[in-house]
Amino acid sequence: MSTTQVTPALSGTTRLYAIIGDPIAQVGSPRLFNAAFRARGIDAVLVAMHVAPSDLGGMIANFRAIKNFDGLIVTVPHKIQVTGLIDRLGGNAARLGAVNTIRKLPDGGLLGDNFDGTGFVRGLAARGIELAGKKVLVIGAGGAGCAVVNAIADQRAAQIGVFDVDQKRCHELIRSVRLHVPSVHIEACDPVAAGFDVIVNCTSVGMKHGDPLPVDISGLDAQTVVADIILKPVRTPLLEAAARLGCITHEGPAMLEGQVDAVMDFFFPTSP
Amino acid sequence: MSTTQVTPALSGTTRLYAIIGDPIAQVGSPRLFNAAFRARGIDAVLVAMHVAPSDLGGMIANFRAIKNFDGLIVTVPHKIQVTGLIDRLGGNAARLGAVNTIRKLPDGGLLGDNFDGTGFVRGLAARGIELAGKKVLVIGAGGAGCAVVNAIADQRAAQIGVFDVDQKRCHELIRSVRLHVPSVHIEACDPVAAGFDVIVNCTSVGMKHGDPLPVDISGLDAQTVVADIILKPVRTPLLEAAARLGCITHEGPAMLEGQVDAVMDFFFPTSP
Repeated sequence: MSTTQVTPALSGTTRLYAIIGDPIAQVGSPRLFNAAFRARGIDAVLVAMHVAPSDLGGMIANFRAIKNFDGLIVTVPHKIQVTGLIDRLGGNAARLGAVNTIRKLPDGGLLGDNFDGTGFVRGLAARGIELAGKKVLVIGAGGAGCAVVNAIADQRAAQIGVFDVDQKRCHELIRSVRLHVPSVHIEACDPVAAGFDVIVNCTSVGMKHGDPLPVDISGLDAQTVVADIILKPVRTPLLEAAARLGCITHEGPAMLEGQVDAVMDFFFPTSP
Repeated sequence: MSTTQVTPALSGTTRLYAIIGDPIAQVGSPRLFNAAFRARGIDAVLVAMHVAPSDLGGMIANFRAIKNFDGLIVTVPHKIQVTGLIDRLGGNAARLGAVNTIRKLPDGGLLGDNFDGTGFVRGLAARGIELAGKKVLVIGAGGAGCAVVNAIADQRAAQIGVFDVDQKRCHELIRSVRLHVPSVHIEACDPVAAGFDVIVNCTSVGMKHGDPLPVDISGLDAQTVVADIILKPVRTPLLEAAARLGCITHEGPAMLEGQVDAVMDFFFPTSP
């Protein structure tokens, strides 16, 4: 993860991958995936492409046309719009109505899927934190919140509480999760952490200096996990406050790092 | 030039460059330019993109749209077609009707120029071989031959002989060079090297196993320079035959390496 990390020499045979987003400067995928390509001995490179929403259609058409361009990571604000520009959706993408990864199939078609929730769960698991049987509070029912809540439901959490200032989208998320995981115990609740084992902030509250905490964490103790999915700053005010209470804190980049293996398996399936 | 050569870690702030061609596997630009970016401390990467002629228009439109995509190297077969897809031509591109390098201007317009001939001259100069006052024979009046002959004329060679099996395009090249460099002494001649100081093969004869020599070099001696612009094989039958006669031989990749500094100055002008 140091700045001296390097990418193998590129050549005319190197296969091309890109992450598309707007803005783009903040993305971590080039570092993570170029390291993964190198670790697996794959002659490929992933570059960042700054694409505005109005240019997304042309970008996808060009991705189809360039013969050595094999895959895309899709980030904000394109995850929903791109679903209408590709040919097939995998299970998580169809469930969420949002795509964060696309690969070109042998027949030239484009298959999209979504590994955001998987990445969050794997990021926790990499630290030995399992969600099965846990009471989990998720703050935020936007794109990231939907992905995370669905993945937590798949892990057989004992109970999921969801809060969003937009009550309508909060209830839409709950209805959708109940449809896919009928056994789940999920309900809307206030942004108060007491009584939960794991707290996850899936809002952008904490990115800007002076933001309030997105959830009341007073009274939490060392048994509680407090996670944030914000990438910058890595140490959000929420995580700092949780650390002062002695909680286990879990930083945003883990969600990206947790996706890498899943996305690599998607990009390079052993049986197509 | 070793296979362990590396590129700095890529990130969301890395500026994007590409070489476009069809085929693409043979290109050397990614290795050369990524080394040049690193040597100058520039956060940029150059990748290979395999673009078919029918997709060139869409590719250029997408190049315009992607906000961190700053420049292109253009290779076979796109050098002529692309002139009609960009906004301005530099002096060499206008003279040759062919572009091999494009940069995005601050106003978003696309400026193309051609450094093939410059690269050949600089490649020789890097070995201390100057063309001023020399008698030079160029075999081939196609795209590469035109670029090389024009650049040699600019170096004030004493005499230039040109041979092409297609007499019409040979005479068109000669007419064009006389228009731009009225003082030049240039004429069509047979593919016989005797009497010339420098011989340059600008045909593809020598790429395939069993090809004949593109020029009769019998009787040459150690004072004569025999150059080839073929990249693969690096040691063409012509260069091997010239070496056996004791001539100074000059390999194809030098023309690419000779372009790098000129193209870098074009990509990153000190005064825009």
